Amino acid sequence: MKNFEFSIPTAVYFGAGEVNRIPELAPKLGKKAMLLAAKDTMRALGFLDKVEGLLKTAGIEVLVSDDVSPNPRDKDINRQTEAFLKAGCDFTVGLGGGSAMDSAKAVAFLAAQGGGNIRDYLAGGSNPEMAGVKDALKCMVITTTAGTGSEVTPWWVITNTDDHEKPGTGNDSTIAEIAIIDPELMLTIPASITKGTGIDVLFHAMEAYIANTATPFTDLFCREAMKLVVENLGTAIEDGKNLEARSNMAWANTIAGIAIGEGKSSTVGIHALGHSIGGQTDAPHGMTMAAIGPAYMRKTWDADIERYAEVTRILGYAEEGMSDKELAAKSPEALIKTLEKFDCRVSMSDLGVTEAMIEPMTDSVFKTMSGCLDCSLKVLTRDDVVQLYKDSL
Amino acid sequence: MKNFEFSIPTAVYFGAGEVNRIPELAPKLGKKAMLLAAKDTMRALGFLDKVEGLLKTAGIEVLVSDDVSPNPRDKDINRQTEAFLKAGCDFTVGLGGGSAMDSAKAVAFLAAQGGGNIRDYLAGGSNPEMAGVKDALKCMVITTTAGTGSEVTPWWVITNTDDHEKPGTGNDSTIAEIAIIDPELMLTIPASITKGTGIDVLFHAMEAYIANTATPFTDLFCREAMKLVVENLGTAIEDGKNLEARSNMAWANTIAGIAIGEGKSSTVGIHALGHSIGGQTDAPHGMTMAAIGPAYMRKTWDADIERYAEVTRILGYAEEGMSDKELAAKSPEALIKTLEKFDCRVSMSDLGVTEAMIEPMTDSVFKTMSGCLDCSLKVLTRDDVVQLYKDSL
Repeated sequence: MKNFEFSIPTAVYFGAGEVNRIPELAPKLGKKAMLLAAKDTMRALGFLDKVEGLLKTAGIEVLVSDDVSPNPRDKDINRQTEAFLKAGCDFTVGLGGGSAMDSAKAVAFLAAQGGGNIRDYLAGGSNPEMAGVKDALKCMVITTTAGTGSEVTPWWVITNTDDHEKPGTGNDSTIAEIAIIDPELMLTIPASITKGTGIDVLFHAMEAYIANTATPFTDLFCREAMKLVVENLGTAIEDGKNLEARSNMAWANTIAGIAIGEGKSSTVGIHALGHSIGGQTDAPHGMTMAAIGPAYMRKTWDADIERYAEVTRILGYAEEGMSDKELAAKSPEALIKTLEKFDCRVSMSDLGVTEAMIEPMTDSVFKTMSGCLDCSLKVLTRDDVVQLYKDSL
Repeated sequence: MKNFEFSIPTAVYFGAGEVNRIPELAPKLGKKAMLLAAKDTMRALGFLDKVEGLLKTAGIEVLVSDDVSPNPRDKDINRQTEAFLKAGCDFTVGLGGGSAMDSAKAVAFLAAQGGGNIRDYLAGGSNPEMAGVKDALKCMVITTTAGTGSEVTPWWVITNTDDHEKPGTGNDSTIAEIAIIDPELMLTIPASITKGTGIDVLFHAMEAYIANTATPFTDLFCREAMKLVVENLGTAIEDGKNLEARSNMAWANTIAGIAIGEGKSSTVGIHALGHSIGGQTDAPHGMTMAAIGPAYMRKTWDADIERYAEVTRILGYAEEGMSDKELAAKSPEALIKTLEKFDCRVSMSDLGVTEAMIEPMTDSVFKTMSGCLDCSLKVLTRDDVVQLYKDSL
């Protein structure tokens, strides 16, 4: 058995109605909170008012910042942190999907440094290693989607407005103290978002299972998360009000997030290449993985026969009498069929990528996502990445 | 899906040779450590000198307390805490099995209160709810057995020298910051201890799976831990130097511990009743569960057909064509066969229990172990407990 390490420092509260425990939980973090959310969605759905009310019930002063954008930029974080410090807040609350949770984590981090420019701590900034920084302030996240894992990871993705890169960053301290995962908040997610975020969960779990960083701890979560997506994503897309399917997708998302977070496995080449498609186009994050996934599996299936065979089994495409090698060789096809089943089979061209974008996308992979790339079971050179992109056009 | 909560606040380092990372890890906890261990075993095996040396390599001052007894008593903890405070230590290091780790957690707790009598915080003491206490000081544990789960739970078991009860206690703060689980330290465990501790792991996992507190989080760990014990305990007993079997048993112990610790499932009536056998006799902890387990399964198998059927499957006694109900009904037999396989089939009489002890043992169950009893899927009355004891004589 290999050596490995893990923890889950976040206190996770999972289940329908858990959001109503905010008055009991939030006072552990402080007396004055900045509540970060997106006006268009969270205000419109009534969730923002609800959470603000629950915080106030506990006697917590609340500063609302309802200007979270779908792809939070460095300038947003700097401005929000300034407001946080000016108001003397103790902690942040992120309500929404990855954007709101990532903003809450980034503001809690930058506020601990006394403000400044978050860009300094992003890849290409003056201190990307976060050397000598102070621990982030406290943070609570309430996820309203099932697709980023952000509620249980220390990572946040902030767009650099200089070069438009979206590097993921974070350190041991930038993980939420409290995460509330309440599937009742997910019943109104539109089918298109359910699809895109749900398929992202599949990739988190599958990639962390076929990463060279996989461990016996993360394997448990990854196998279960893949299984849950296979069994529940269809229902969640077609029947969004189905609480059981929503709960199972939310749970799959949480445990896949743990695998790539403090479980210390990682996504691999699929996320590395997909991420940079997102930098060049406005394609939904999950769909960029769907475009790359099949080519990546074709390139790597023989790197670990046992694991790729297990992927085929879990996706449900094992046939009686097949050897592990045959099963592993079938994993690209199993992935394609799974993507088709959930109407997620796309090419890069479908997402608006042209051949001219391949060079800058490849540059971006090595600049901002080499960490994930290095977790692939096969070493991928620059030529390999270019070829994977060409194969996925 | 039911609502549930969890975290794993302990940073877990797992694998052969991980003990050598002490110089890198320990300085996070402070500059002066009290190292608690048992002279007879840890000094004799050379582990105590090794760990002391590794701590000193990191520039940590070390106060050695090598007087940990197999069943640590309140007086031991009080004396060790006094020495800790007098020397101005920052944190404790527990090296050994449950006794050493529990002592390290208890001293770290009592030291935070400025000393005093640990008995105050035990069941029947002046403040068993630990109301208004300060958070425990920091603690590192290095487990040398695979059978208590203490390295990842907040619980510690200290004998009350007044009434000889051994209540388990602890709060959110009494969990180790760092746990090192190094199976190389387990290669010299005698077969009898391997057996007793290994069977305890099976009960931790099985009980937490058939508890009314089981969750989707703990289920993952419990199923895997049961499977690993079934596959590896025999080899670990017969071939103690087998690192793979030792690693798998250590991993089973860790994840079963997480299930009953911050996973917030629990052991059930088997541990409740077994624990009190340990109070009346010197029977090894694991064997007391083995004596009670079959009667408990016969009493409760129809409380959750699906779960008890799964137990029979995981233990390896499912036969083709059996219905879930038939499988569940077979779970007592499956447990008995499993105990026989590992030479752990014993009656209470074998352990030295007489019928006259049943009344005081029953009193003790309700006095110190009602928490576990309440997690059983079937409500167990006083009469039920007496009957279970009689059935197990």
